Amino acid sequence: MHTVAARAGVSIASASRVLNGVGGSPETVRRVREAAAAVGYVPNAIARSLQSQRTGLIAFAVEDIGNPVYVAMMRAIEAVVAESGHQLLVHATGGQVASETALLRRLAHRYVDGMIISPIRITAAHVAALTTTPVPVVVIGQLADDVPVDNVRTDSRSGIALAVDHLVAAGRTRIAFLNGPLDTVPGVARDAGFRAALERHGMPVDLIEVGDFQYAPGRAAAERLLSRAEPDAIVCANDLIAVGALHALLVAGKRVPEDVALVGMDDTELAQMSYPQISSVSLGSEERGRRAARLLLERIADGALPPRREHVAPSLVIRATSGGVQ
Amino acid sequence: MHTVAARAGVSIASASRVLNGVGGSPETVRRVREAAAAVGYVPNAIARSLQSQRTGLIAFAVEDIGNPVYVAMMRAIEAVVAESGHQLLVHATGGQVASETALLRRLAHRYVDGMIISPIRITAAHVAALTTTPVPVVVIGQLADDVPVDNVRTDSRSGIALAVDHLVAAGRTRIAFLNGPLDTVPGVARDAGFRAALERHGMPVDLIEVGDFQYAPGRAAAERLLSRAEPDAIVCANDLIAVGALHALLVAGKRVPEDVALVGMDDTELAQMSYPQISSVSLGSEERGRRAARLLLERIADGALPPRREHVAPSLVIRATSGGVQ
Repeated sequence: MHTVAARAGVSIASASRVLNGVGGSPETVRRVREAAAAVGYVPNAIARSLQSQRTGLIAFAVEDIGNPVYVAMMRAIEAVVAESGHQLLVHATGGQVASETALLRRLAHRYVDGMIISPIRITAAHVAALTTTPVPVVVIGQLADDVPVDNVRTDSRSGIALAVDHLVAAGRTRIAFLNGPLDTVPGVARDAGFRAALERHGMPVDLIEVGDFQYAPGRAAAERLLSRAEPDAIVCANDLIAVGALHALLVAGKRVPEDVALVGMDDTELAQMSYPQISSVSLGSEERGRRAARLLLERIADGALPPRREHVAPSLVIRATSGGVQ
Repeated sequence: MHTVAARAGVSIASASRVLNGVGGSPETVRRVREAAAAVGYVPNAIARSLQSQRTGLIAFAVEDIGNPVYVAMMRAIEAVVAESGHQLLVHATGGQVASETALLRRLAHRYVDGMIISPIRITAAHVAALTTTPVPVVVIGQLADDVPVDNVRTDSRSGIALAVDHLVAAGRTRIAFLNGPLDTVPGVARDAGFRAALERHGMPVDLIEVGDFQYAPGRAAAERLLSRAEPDAIVCANDLIAVGALHALLVAGKRVPEDVALVGMDDTELAQMSYPQISSVSLGSEERGRRAARLLLERIADGALPPRREHVAPSLVIRATSGGVQ
């Protein structure tokens, strides 16, 4: 800093202000920057990183930031990490295994102090990257029991059962299911949960359509369903699918819930922003985010902790599309 | 690396694999990490940062990642920066000036190679931070003409005029406006645009309600409006407000568009996901994102470029809520 200030012909205080981004006249800024470049000044964060190996940054890697369930999770995580003085970075991975494992491998370069990741597929490549990264990672999702990584999970299988039991109690007998892809962890769990719940009630399992966890595929899946059957209730594997299904039902002239009841999953803002408002199974996305952030901060403080596993139970929020109050 | 491998009692290849996050047996990983810690091994990224001062990371700082307009912008930015081998980090600032200027000041530590920021308020503190940061920044928004920073802007004022002209041409005579806060750049521009357009048509400007750029305040503003007046059309300052207004209209028993036409702004997925689908003024959010990303990459490659200013024109997308096809 002394060398930079001397070379720039400014005071040490001025050089410090410029190099810490606080300000300065355009001329001072120009001269200090040129001097810093000429003498190979090492910026603070990098110098500090060399000493402490800490960056003050925490990453959240998520498949689809356009899905409001991840926005809710992100806000909960940010509130916790901000309290400890960290800033949150969000990566949108597009659910690509290569992109997710590349991020995990990049952690070897310690560009953040820790990462929370919510993959919708967990492959052998994920597990290999998770168990060798030198930076703490917490996984939100269904990690196999023998993977020694901190993990926060829910049980969407029993969440689907809550939706089915509610619809059966309301007298619905032709219950359909619109799911996302069966090569994803949530797709498999929700399919199993739906089948088990219907079989428990002695109902035939014949009204399933598979699309993607998005609005347009959800709407298309509902249109396929309505072209071949007359369900009196539809359970959807997330709220984006449920919004698509609601539109298909309204366009087809169905009254909701009188003709067809509808229940989504994730209990996002979208469910409340639809008209009529959509009943939805909450998987505790904010609570999962909060717990993951706390586990990560504890892990950063003490790397010797044993791997921990936390569970957030699902609950059902009843709104107008399944008989609740608008 | 040689020292770490020797101390851990493993091959250089094994040590390299562990330290680059590619993998290794749990025992190898443990030994290599302990050896690396003991000898003070400097991770690749930090060592590389010292030499090249490049991180391979680009940041996008945005007020509210829950607003789908920013998700669309983010996806467009990510597509461009990924082509150049950069990874995108997203910061959600909550629209807090202190948080935004803290991020800009943090750039002095060069934790990313560049930043795109879309502030909804641009204060003197923003301008001071923007003009002194040593890392390239591109602003999406209305920057004053004399601020020497790369800037991509649109003209929401003329966007509002497109909506008003469309409603007047459809025979609407009692056109209301639901706006966000008047201490924000978009709030001020949209208010001015609405007033100018109505005055141009010789209409009284008496149906304005101000809330916030969110769903619930939009719905509340529409309820206040409907309790005191009988508009035959409502223009909303963004799509979240428009979704709230649509719900207030439907709950009040109004037919949309027969009784009241509705036009939102930003042309987000929300406008298409609503039923009936909502007409909306596009402000070219994806195009603005793409252009900002290109300006930033050019600036990173050549810091001597003069400040550039690009403009994306608004356009109107007519859907069911103002007489288009459902």
